[in-house]
Amino acid sequence: MAFSKKKISEIRQLHQKKFREQSGLFIVEGTKSVLEVIRSDWEITMLCALSGWLSIHALFLSGIEHQEVSQDELERVSCLRTPQEVLAVVRKKEFNMHSICMDEHLLVLDGIRDPGNMGTIIRTADWFGQRQILCSGDSVEVTNPKVIQASMGSFLRVKVIYADIAAYLCQLPKDCAIYGTFMTGKPLKETHFTNNAIVIIGNEGKGISENVASLISEKITIPRGESETESLNASIAAGILLYKLNVEK
Amino acid sequence: MAFSKKKISEIRQLHQKKFREQSGLFIVEGTKSVLEVIRSDWEITMLCALSGWLSIHALFLSGIEHQEVSQDELERVSCLRTPQEVLAVVRKKEFNMHSICMDEHLLVLDGIRDPGNMGTIIRTADWFGQRQILCSGDSVEVTNPKVIQASMGSFLRVKVIYADIAAYLCQLPKDCAIYGTFMTGKPLKETHFTNNAIVIIGNEGKGISENVASLISEKITIPRGESETESLNASIAAGILLYKLNVEK
Repeated sequence: MAFSKKKISEIRQLHQKKFREQSGLFIVEGTKSVLEVIRSDWEITMLCALSGWLSIHALFLSGIEHQEVSQDELERVSCLRTPQEVLAVVRKKEFNMHSICMDEHLLVLDGIRDPGNMGTIIRTADWFGQRQILCSGDSVEVTNPKVIQASMGSFLRVKVIYADIAAYLCQLPKDCAIYGTFMTGKPLKETHFTNNAIVIIGNEGKGISENVASLISEKITIPRGESETESLNASIAAGILLYKLNVEK
Repeated sequence: MAFSKKKISEIRQLHQKKFREQSGLFIVEGTKSVLEVIRSDWEITMLCALSGWLSIHALFLSGIEHQEVSQDELERVSCLRTPQEVLAVVRKKEFNMHSICMDEHLLVLDGIRDPGNMGTIIRTADWFGQRQILCSGDSVEVTNPKVIQASMGSFLRVKVIYADIAAYLCQLPKDCAIYGTFMTGKPLKETHFTNNAIVIIGNEGKGISENVASLISEKITIPRGESETESLNASIAAGILLYKLNVEK
């Protein structure tokens, strides 16, 4: 069966946020990530791959709608400069505030905009066994192709929830410890996280937004050494926090 | 004075490693980074900028050869998809094994290939006040435009030295502690770094090369939580190590 122009155009539309939101679908590329989706309980609505890939992986494809494509066709639907051999269209899972488990740590991202940072943070959370991230509505969406790419399959194992952060924090019990990272605060070294801690990281340039900052009970900081540099990369700050939170407490 | 075709072609050549090596020059873009170069003791051989930028920053430009360019000309010389208002051609500083200061920590990168990782690692080292990084010859070069961009000016403050890592390690006193990160090893939490520690991080996919690994006295690891993911991003691993090394020891 030939790969119809209509199909190509439908997949290409998923490069855009608007169409991902309308359809509830997004794109995953590359053997490693696509095989991880196949093994997971996420739904693949369409898989297209080069003929060599399809014959090698035939055993994995039962029950999955798939389509052989040419290199040229793959290039037309791919989000990558150098397309890999396989691309899957996957159905989003929808989470909301009620998906948050209060018996675990919660990492909160307030306005992370860079897809590479978001993907790397999801991958790092996964490494440390942290299973949930709450993001503000203005954060880059998890189904952005660059986020999916940078997360290296970890988006399958970490619940990424989009909701109003302040609204979530407001309805928590009053004694909940809410940590936020700032340029000044208690040094991370002296911070001892409670169980089920909530840790907030702000936007790459502007930090944590005012209405969220007012709800934070502990301001913490990753101290700078003797240096003139202005900031740590947000995904590095998140990596150090996730290490402290999950390994050294 | 018009911006000659010859000049445009000379600057464009610096997009390529070969020409950066031949000329000893490289490109820095964006107001923040270019102003940091001007303030530093690094030499700018040529600066080109839009007229608005030049008039706002005229006070900083004495003694610097500069050239007004149009948006179109800037796009032709820029390495960025969205060029910023200013671009500087800067002369490399050359360091070698003898530039390494043994009275400080040394971060060693054995084959880091991704320019974003390299730039972020330099930026993170700078944040923690760590002043020197030794890289193997097959690591991405520090003057790669994407490294410069991701380092956010930190390349000016951190000495990045390219040399044969094994040869350097071999000539050190025998009691020198050499730490290397592996998938299995002593957990980072239980590691207490000596003063002037040498810490090695390997290639994104292959880890530390065999001839370097054989010279390591302490194998350390950043433990994984309950997770199926395969690896931490190299710049995140470096960030956590640099934090431990410089802040928590």
